[in-house]
Amino acid sequence: MNAILPPFLILDRLLQDWLAEDIGRGDRTTQSLFATGSRTGEAHWIVKESGVIAGLPIAARVFQLLNPQVTFIAIVEEGQWCEKGQPIAQIIGALDALLTGERVALNLVMRLSGIATATHNYVETIADLPTQFVDTRKTTPGLRILEKYATQVGGAINHRMGLDDGVMIKDNHIAAAGGIANAIAQIRPRIPYPLTIEVETETLDQVAEALQHGADIIMLDNMPLDTMRQAVRMIRETNDRIKIEASGNITLETIRSVAETGVDYISSSAPITRSTWLDLSMRMNA
Amino acid sequence: MNAILPPFLILDRLLQDWLAEDIGRGDRTTQSLFATGSRTGEAHWIVKESGVIAGLPIAARVFQLLNPQVTFIAIVEEGQWCEKGQPIAQIIGALDALLTGERVALNLVMRLSGIATATHNYVETIADLPTQFVDTRKTTPGLRILEKYATQVGGAINHRMGLDDGVMIKDNHIAAAGGIANAIAQIRPRIPYPLTIEVETETLDQVAEALQHGADIIMLDNMPLDTMRQAVRMIRETNDRIKIEASGNITLETIRSVAETGVDYISSSAPITRSTWLDLSMRMNA
Amino acid sequence: MNAILPPFLILDRLLQDWLAEDIGRGDRTTQSLFATGSRTGEAHWIVKESGVIAGLPIAARVFQLLNPQVTFIAIVEEGQWCEKGQPIAQIIGALDALLTGERVALNLVMRLSGIATATHNYVETIADLPTQFVDTRKTTPGLRILEKYATQVGGAINHRMGLDDGVMIKDNHIAAAGGIANAIAQIRPRIPYPLTIEVETETLDQVAEALQHGADIIMLDNMPLDTMRQAVRMIRETNDRIKIEASGNITLETIRSVAETGVDYISSSAPITRSTWLDLSMRMNA
Amino acid sequence: MNAILPPFLILDRLLQDWLAEDIGRGDRTTQSLFATGSRTGEAHWIVKESGVIAGLPIAARVFQLLNPQVTFIAIVEEGQWCEKGQPIAQIIGALDALLTGERVALNLVMRLSGIATATHNYVETIADLPTQFVDTRKTTPGLRILEKYATQVGGAINHRMGLDDGVMIKDNHIAAAGGIANAIAQIRPRIPYPLTIEVETETLDQVAEALQHGADIIMLDNMPLDTMRQAVRMIRETNDRIKIEASGNITLETIRSVAETGVDYISSSAPITRSTWLDLSMRMNA
Amino acid sequence: MNAILPPFLILDRLLQDWLAEDIGRGDRTTQSLFATGSRTGEAHWIVKESGVIAGLPIAARVFQLLNPQVTFIAIVEEGQWCEKGQPIAQIIGALDALLTGERVALNLVMRLSGIATATHNYVETIADLPTQFVDTRKTTPGLRILEKYATQVGGAINHRMGLDDGVMIKDNHIAAAGGIANAIAQIRPRIPYPLTIEVETETLDQVAEALQHGADIIMLDNMPLDTMRQAVRMIRETNDRIKIEASGNITLETIRSVAETGVDYISSSAPITRSTWLDLSMRMNA
Amino acid sequence: MNAILPPFLILDRLLQDWLAEDIGRGDRTTQSLFATGSRTGEAHWIVKESGVIAGLPIAARVFQLLNPQVTFIAIVEEGQWCEKGQPIAQIIGALDALLTGERVALNLVMRLSGIATATHNYVETIADLPTQFVDTRKTTPGLRILEKYATQVGGAINHRMGLDDGVMIKDNHIAAAGGIANAIAQIRPRIPYPLTIEVETETLDQVAEALQHGADIIMLDNMPLDTMRQAVRMIRETNDRIKIEASGNITLETIRSVAETGVDYISSSAPITRSTWLDLSMRMNA
Repeated sequence: MNAILPPFLILDRLLQDWLAEDIGRGDRTTQSLFATGSRTGEAHWIVKESGVIAGLPIAARVFQLLNPQVTFIAIVEEGQWCEKGQPIAQIIGALDALLTGERVALNLVMRLSGIATATHNYVETIADLPTQFVDTRKTTPGLRILEKYATQVGGAINHRMGLDDGVMIKDNHIAAAGGIANAIAQIRPRIPYPLTIEVETETLDQVAEALQHGADIIMLDNMPLDTMRQAVRMIRETNDRIKIEASGNITLETIRSVAETGVDYISSSAPITRSTWLDLSMRMNA
Repeated sequence: MNAILPPFLILDRLLQDWLAEDIGRGDRTTQSLFATGSRTGEAHWIVKESGVIAGLPIAARVFQLLNPQVTFIAIVEEGQWCEKGQPIAQIIGALDALLTGERVALNLVMRLSGIATATHNYVETIADLPTQFVDTRKTTPGLRILEKYATQVGGAINHRMGLDDGVMIKDNHIAAAGGIANAIAQIRPRIPYPLTIEVETETLDQVAEALQHGADIIMLDNMPLDTMRQAVRMIRETNDRIKIEASGNITLETIRSVAETGVDYISSSAPITRSTWLDLSMRMNA
Repeated sequence: MNAILPPFLILDRLLQDWLAEDIGRGDRTTQSLFATGSRTGEAHWIVKESGVIAGLPIAARVFQLLNPQVTFIAIVEEGQWCEKGQPIAQIIGALDALLTGERVALNLVMRLSGIATATHNYVETIADLPTQFVDTRKTTPGLRILEKYATQVGGAINHRMGLDDGVMIKDNHIAAAGGIANAIAQIRPRIPYPLTIEVETETLDQVAEALQHGADIIMLDNMPLDTMRQAVRMIRETNDRIKIEASGNITLETIRSVAETGVDYISSSAPITRSTWLDLSMRMNA
Repeated sequence: MNAILPPFLILDRLLQDWLAEDIGRGDRTTQSLFATGSRTGEAHWIVKESGVIAGLPIAARVFQLLNPQVTFIAIVEEGQWCEKGQPIAQIIGALDALLTGERVALNLVMRLSGIATATHNYVETIADLPTQFVDTRKTTPGLRILEKYATQVGGAINHRMGLDDGVMIKDNHIAAAGGIANAIAQIRPRIPYPLTIEVETETLDQVAEALQHGADIIMLDNMPLDTMRQAVRMIRETNDRIKIEASGNITLETIRSVAETGVDYISSSAPITRSTWLDLSMRMNA
Repeated sequence: MNAILPPFLILDRLLQDWLAEDIGRGDRTTQSLFATGSRTGEAHWIVKESGVIAGLPIAARVFQLLNPQVTFIAIVEEGQWCEKGQPIAQIIGALDALLTGERVALNLVMRLSGIATATHNYVETIADLPTQFVDTRKTTPGLRILEKYATQVGGAINHRMGLDDGVMIKDNHIAAAGGIANAIAQIRPRIPYPLTIEVETETLDQVAEALQHGADIIMLDNMPLDTMRQAVRMIRETNDRIKIEASGNITLETIRSVAETGVDYISSSAPITRSTWLDLSMRMNA
Repeated sequence: MNAILPPFLILDRLLQDWLAEDIGRGDRTTQSLFATGSRTGEAHWIVKESGVIAGLPIAARVFQLLNPQVTFIAIVEEGQWCEKGQPIAQIIGALDALLTGERVALNLVMRLSGIATATHNYVETIADLPTQFVDTRKTTPGLRILEKYATQVGGAINHRMGLDDGVMIKDNHIAAAGGIANAIAQIRPRIPYPLTIEVETETLDQVAEALQHGADIIMLDNMPLDTMRQAVRMIRETNDRIKIEASGNITLETIRSVAETGVDYISSSAPITRSTWLDLSMRMNA
């Protein structure tokens, strides 16, 4: 699997904030019943609908931030497809940590697994073609590194992570700069030189202009399939290093025909904006 | 509308973190083209699928944190149902602030409007009945106050906001405490006295036990409709101040028959875990 | 004992800030004499005036944040009454951690024990009556969760922890809303449904209005004992689930006669605003 | 008046944290009744017991952090003695800001005024003598800069603010270093050179040793008056730049006779650890 | 000028921390003499040695964070070469803000101008050649976005900003992965697809391997000029989109001959690690 | 050695921020090649130019924040002079922690060792004289405690650490206050009494005035050697407790003659503002 989590040095601040959001001034129910660490419990997690699991290492960390002695055993591989009813993790440790951390841990894994599953469904459709499926910047505020980790788990390649690790010249930028040529000319000397410049195009004329002025990536936005094919041909003839991305209302129905135009990447926000959470539950062992 | 946002003193920390998440070390594209504040632009937001709008005051704040001079004019009321194609906001101000803030602002309003719309669909189904629709703690980590604001915008009543502003005694607690009676007896003197205690029940015997030992709210979890009706009758005869909540896999198909059993509240995580984002786009005025 | 500390995940941020407040850029005296962890020392804490001890687990954590190897042995139980001169804790570990952490740890336990002791004095006066003693929101900014923990240690029940886990309708709210009925009607649908609504009343008419419109808790504010007794009777006849709180300049002299009116709760800020710190000192073992 | 507040750049972080502590996820009562900024109100603050007022500029800032348009007019001077019943401030602005900020603002000014009043009582006793009254590091964690501001308002001079802006060699340090001479010799080259070294002494022999090895400040700890007088004489004869501080269980009864020994400073934690809050209330103007 | 500052939303957190570092618990000197905002002053900044100025907009912000009414007028352009003795800025506003903010503001501009000046000296040497001068990740911890802004002001192009916006495969990575081919094959599918992969090479064989396996940027590390020329030729013949960077102990003496080999970029940490601060002083106007 | 690091409780926040600055959303190169903790590596650090080493304990902490199991063995003493080519540290642990932490750790030690080395060069020049070499507040924003630690490692004594742990009355303060006498009179009662007051003087008249009004430290700013000698004599005759500091464009050439005037301290920012980084590199063991 190609998915990579940032170091816990980076993640821990988020996880602590999220636990604090749920716990507030204390877990009234659990803490009134058990003194911290006074009782040990065992629980397991079950998937309640089939799908791809993402986020188990993060769930483990959530419990361990509450109590470092908690043992979290992933029964399935990160990224594995699981059938309804399948146990996916075993958790052993202080009962209060298990009950207090349950909701935050489950919420994360349910959300991330929902994204991974939806991504997987797109990716499977074009698995035999060279085209790669990529995500977008339409992510829930505060969760980008995790939601983009989930699309990786589901088989996607990440697009840029933010406004700073890539350039994307859209129609508003082109209009304001007075054309693609001007825009690229102004941007290139102002950005870290390893960064690439992507230009959003809607017509073959724009594709030609982007090509001529040195775009590294050309996005074909909402083009008819036929135009797309012409654009791919035009670009390949110029330089085989230029990457081609198709975008715009890609669905499970349309994705394959788009991939068959020969584009390198197809981007879609759907696995993040159109997916539902994968249902999971935690059960205490008797 | 009954929805209430926390003060910006509380929200601003989140919004700043979320802008920082997207901007990183700088918006390479926009900042390379326009010096900060050097050009003014106008944009409007359009809904691309029909639904309930939620989050416009938050979007306004996002832009104003980047540039306090931005004017954000909501064209529709917060909570209003909008038809596909309808303009919902007008934004005037520094072009760089508009382009740099666009994604974070849209992501928030799309997510929140998706939740509000899904909530609205549930609420409409039982609008003529006294039963209220409520949310749960299944929310995206870090966004609880906003996602629960969105369910309010959609017509729901909030359930507790975290582990600290209400007690919920679940089966694991009951098992570990040795019964409902013991659990309530241990919890009551340890919590702020204005807090209420809710007990999750699955059988009429448990309902009776909860009633006898002073539960403030009784949740009927996954009960058959007939059992539910009996439970409602039993509780009402004891004390009309006790609140009754039904929960467990409520769908748009089943919600009305559940409401007709006479419960006070029906809780569901579906508007948050099963909804998709409401599609919106920002267009620059020519 | 019924007192409950929030998890250290929540407390650690406060404790770190407080250590940083005292240490600033470094402990000039101690760090100039001993390299970090280079010498081991033993100390004990002595109470210099009799009272109830609160905060020992927090003191332990303060030292351990400086050096995880420090052993802090509480000799007395949290909440125990101690006589002047009694040793209450033994501390063994790196000498620099002991000397650098001393002041913050002692300041916390002295303040909290002072509150617990004052609370205990009130609670003892009515220990044989069913009435409970509760605290208020008059707490030192930044220390609410700890000061309210201390009133619990002293035998009190907590009132709400903040503006968000309970509703309290005061005269200003009533005036602005146009009466108790209006105020409750506006508030109820806007708050998480498990929250309770308390109404502050000064006359029997107000009590009647609060009763009629569904207040969950009725506060009798500064009422003569006779009026109080009538109010209690009126409320009990309506619904035995409604909680009654007496408030307003309760003193050690007046508290018992107030409790004898039959109210459920008596609230007072005195243990926090009128108490002094319990004197403690740390002595190094020779 | 000699009291000095740190810049708001420093204070604002504290004030925001303290407002967040009270507001939590929102002011359920006030925000359910009035939309933010929708109504204007006027209030005034009254002292309910006589004393010295401290903290009004901080209270003003608290309200303005909630709503920058709030006008807070101090009717009395910071540090002024006020009689019971006297109005001390007028506040005009958004009603929700007034009601939501009330408790935090009052809690601060009540605590700080209590400290200022207690300090004032000590200072008055020796006002005609050259001896100055100073505070200690026994302060509420998190509030040191404000509590030490309050002792200034009450007429005291501050002692060091933390472990880093002054050296204080106590018996534990002396024992561990093997004597006063060794301790000073080790510390002097390791600290910022403008810092002064204070040595705690209990006997005339220790005073002599501290004098001989270059202490900048000599503290006479718990000495009989007669010994104190001898110590003062011995020190003055050596160098008139050395400052002399008396400490140890100073009370309102004993302070004057201690001052008459000729010491430069008398330190006491009593105004902070033994004071009660000055009672204040906020009343809305009809 | 091509230099771009990140938005103040990002910078303000740093500037506030840096002011707090210097101010600590308060500016004892200035605040004891003038009440906040009580007096207005005027000052100007003078360069005391010739060089390129960088950082004036940041200096302006530093003063305005202390007092928003301060007017900071840059007399010279950001990036302008100034002669010794030249006034570069005029500052008008509250005297306390001017004196309290002086050191932090000057420290920043002195450091950044020193970097810009040193960069300028390198850039000038090859100004007539197409080769660009770029920086590295050898920057002072915490100041990277500002120090890299300063190299831009001095005429350089930025290299990647951190470990996340570009890939750099060094000898340790190559060794551990078992060759360049393996390393690229493992990395490409795991990174955001717009990112480029740079490979550090020391021999022509390595250059050939990097070329063959799709490196986007090839760094020629410490190569003799002749080898470098051969490498450039080999790469250009393969694909003119591949960028070539020379690195390794570049000095003012050697840079021109390296540029003449035809590489696209020459990277050096010297302007940051080998530069001194440009001396500036602030003078109050009489 | 006299250098003292603040506790890690204080430093860790800085180190975490600095690691986060470099890592951003993840180390694309290293994390794509090795799963966290999956491989162990060994590396050593070599000095590439001779100088004084400072910062090794901080470097150790940097790696351990990424992975607590990393072992960092300092081969040389902190503060030791090392010759070019000498190994100074051995590091063993998870390969990904070594590669991801390398740059931040090296940047810190290179910067601090550069400062320590430059300081050492000044200190050596006057090592046989009683005069001490001290630093100033010209430090890189955010790094003051570390850069001042480095001057200690190099043999300097620290001057004040910020605006709050010492008073420095400069010409602007004197002018605004209406003379030295007024300035001291206003400041003394407003500051913590253990703090000292330093007055910057340029003439013998000013020295006399500072002496007469109780300055604790007198700075002779940019005085001719002859005037300096007279000033020293004048001050010594008055009180041998008053400290004398010389300042103003001290160089390696002039420092000895200044020291010979008999001043106690010579301050200079040169080791911080005029030094370059000591070149170091990390090499993986085969």
